Amino acid sequence: MRERDVIKFLGEKLPIGDDCAILSLGKTNLLLTTDMLHRQTDFPEGMTPYTMGWRAIAVSLSDIAAMGGKPLGVVIALGAPEFDKEFLEELLDGALACCDACETKLIGGDTDRHSELTIVTTALGRAQKPVLRSGARPEELVCVTGDLGRTAAALELLKAKEYEQANELLRFMPRLREGQALAPLASSMIDISDGLARSLYQLGEASNVGFHIDATAIPFALEVEELARDQDEIFEMGLFFGEDFELLFTLPQEKLFEARRACEFTVIGRVVSKNEGITMQLGLERVVLPDRGYEH
Amino acid sequence: MRERDVIKFLGEKLPIGDDCAILSLGKTNLLLTTDMLHRQTDFPEGMTPYTMGWRAIAVSLSDIAAMGGKPLGVVIALGAPEFDKEFLEELLDGALACCDACETKLIGGDTDRHSELTIVTTALGRAQKPVLRSGARPEELVCVTGDLGRTAAALELLKAKEYEQANELLRFMPRLREGQALAPLASSMIDISDGLARSLYQLGEASNVGFHIDATAIPFALEVEELARDQDEIFEMGLFFGEDFELLFTLPQEKLFEARRACEFTVIGRVVSKNEGITMQLGLERVVLPDRGYEH
Repeated sequence: MRERDVIKFLGEKLPIGDDCAILSLGKTNLLLTTDMLHRQTDFPEGMTPYTMGWRAIAVSLSDIAAMGGKPLGVVIALGAPEFDKEFLEELLDGALACCDACETKLIGGDTDRHSELTIVTTALGRAQKPVLRSGARPEELVCVTGDLGRTAAALELLKAKEYEQANELLRFMPRLREGQALAPLASSMIDISDGLARSLYQLGEASNVGFHIDATAIPFALEVEELARDQDEIFEMGLFFGEDFELLFTLPQEKLFEARRACEFTVIGRVVSKNEGITMQLGLERVVLPDRGYEH
Repeated sequence: MRERDVIKFLGEKLPIGDDCAILSLGKTNLLLTTDMLHRQTDFPEGMTPYTMGWRAIAVSLSDIAAMGGKPLGVVIALGAPEFDKEFLEELLDGALACCDACETKLIGGDTDRHSELTIVTTALGRAQKPVLRSGARPEELVCVTGDLGRTAAALELLKAKEYEQANELLRFMPRLREGQALAPLASSMIDISDGLARSLYQLGEASNVGFHIDATAIPFALEVEELARDQDEIFEMGLFFGEDFELLFTLPQEKLFEARRACEFTVIGRVVSKNEGITMQLGLERVVLPDRGYEH
């Protein structure tokens, strides 16, 4: 089974569908999300232990951000072939620094000897009114925070042995502040973990809508524009590669100005009806955006 | 670094010390705990996928039980070399059955292709007044729920290809009901994950006390008494092997009868002063219980 099929299969057994699980408790909602990262897939040659620790925390906090939540704490399960003190210290420093930057705490963990370096982080958060993937309606605006393609660019930089710049790009900041600011305004939200294209399909499926995106409006990272040799490569890095961890959200037209005051973002298109599909305006053409992206 | 040193090192960086991390939220306390299990260490030949799924959930719920908590939900991160539908289905059925038996829910997850089958479960719970490891005082009673050595016996049965009986023993029931019933009464509590001996040392260190245990009072599992060839083997399986997941707790004398009405358990000894160490009465001798146990 491919990972997408596994997730589909799990979805039949579990209430999976948003970036976090939601548990209502009294007057608030708890958010819980877990992410597995490991050497072969997530920690390429040249990524420092500090950056690994940072990213392990950041990917889970990004899920809390995507529901408009505030983090309460993170736990970490760490498996490694051997525990080298220096490596472990650097990794933990990166994890703690990310927690600090996000005003949350690493509150516990488990360690295990494992054939491959494996880090599983679980973040707990809360939200008065979590933003789901299912609230987008035709005519609304489609928006993203930040810029796209940073992880793709970082991997190119690693290959070119530009380690410092690459690691800096890889230590992304989870969009918690933006997520919380947008929570009362956005009609749907998701973090872009598998690339903009796949995220649009996920949001479209959950909300039962289509999207029409304007290629000229998409904010590609500066590094992507520098490193890509042509438009196809820009699209590959910025639309399909994934691991951007920016927020993709929809916004009723009348909320636009209030949202602008809340945080920075870019309007990249409009919600359309389901039967119009997911398309991109490219010059005079309206092309179908293929449903493909990064499979972790 | 050995795992114990790693945990010690982590303990200097993180607030580790109890079975779960505690977060106060309004008038209640949230409990969060994460556990990593994987093929090489935790899933021996002959353990069924159903039992793997059950145990992965049960180990995390046991940590909630050890603080006197009530589970709110569990998330699972699953890494596997390939996703065989039948295997996955059986594993999930086991996980869901354990959640059902414990009146909680599997609320989300993450999947990942991984060189080795790896399951990380994170349980969220709540407790009005979590029972810590640090509350034991001299003169109190030392008690355990259930009987000891079941996992050790199960592994012997697996070797003898007695798969059905082994798997049944391996699907232990987390002591949630007992933990909650004891929470208002017990002065300290821990789940026996590394063996009774190590758990006594962990409790003793946190509470700054010693223990004196009566060998004749220790409830060894029937299977241990059947499989062990002599007393040394009984002790090995019941005191040092670990993965019993019973609750070890201390109780003020005057709470004994109230506790007896709350749930079943066995009194195995007394709390003594720190400088008396951790000892066991064996016939006429008082022997020091060595500080060793299972390292996961």
